[in-house]
Amino acid sequence: MYKTVGTHFLMDFWGVNAELLDDKKRILAILVTAAEKTHSQILGSKVHKFSPHGLTAVLLLAESHISIHTYPEYNFAALDVYTCGSHTTPEKGVRYLKTALHPKTFTIQRIKRGLN
Amino acid sequence: MYKTVGTHFLMDFWGVNAELLDDKKRILAILVTAAEKTHSQILGSKVHKFSPHGLTAVLLLAESHISIHTYPEYNFAALDVYTCGSHTTPEKGVRYLKTALHPKTFTIQRIKRGLN
Repeated sequence: MYKTVGTHFLMDFWGVNAELLDDKKRILAILVTAAEKTHSQILGSKVHKFSPHGLTAVLLLAESHISIHTYPEYNFAALDVYTCGSHTTPEKGVRYLKTALHPKTFTIQRIKRGLN
Repeated sequence: MYKTVGTHFLMDFWGVNAELLDDKKRILAILVTAAEKTHSQILGSKVHKFSPHGLTAVLLLAESHISIHTYPEYNFAALDVYTCGSHTTPEKGVRYLKTALHPKTFTIQRIKRGLN
């Protein structure tokens, strides 16, 4: 299997607690735990807090990235979990994110990347 | 239209020049120009250069993100252009990235995000 092959989950979460979606510290901690669940190595992170509400955060992984964009005013978050390599378990990260953010409704799409 | 609605392009580029894919400065400049083409506002960037080759870069946008993961040894790059808001033109960013990276073969998927 190519080293380039990866799995990219695109998640749209609705009905998430607005306060949580606006909490930079808690959201970052959730992403870090999600990365651990996927057995990925975190290389760095970047977070931006919007005024009056909402935030964007990305974790750079040795195996690609995890990102979130939150809209507390709509109780909405768009998340991506993209990991490469046969050692990673992105499904476990996705499952954890669902538990941690507890959306009322959601869509999850799974897309294969890097297939030649 | 919901403010949450966005367009997410997932691009797998093959047959890209290996030297370019390993050049942190040029790749970052290409992403910045791509962001400008989409009429997005750049909030920050994060880049990691792998040893011996490859890099990962993410631009945080006021309208979501642009990311790239490169594998010069396979002449491969996986790119994402995800922008929200009716003022953005992600298609123009995608078109520019194709011109700038000049892949021999590619797949591009367009996915709507944030639709309730």
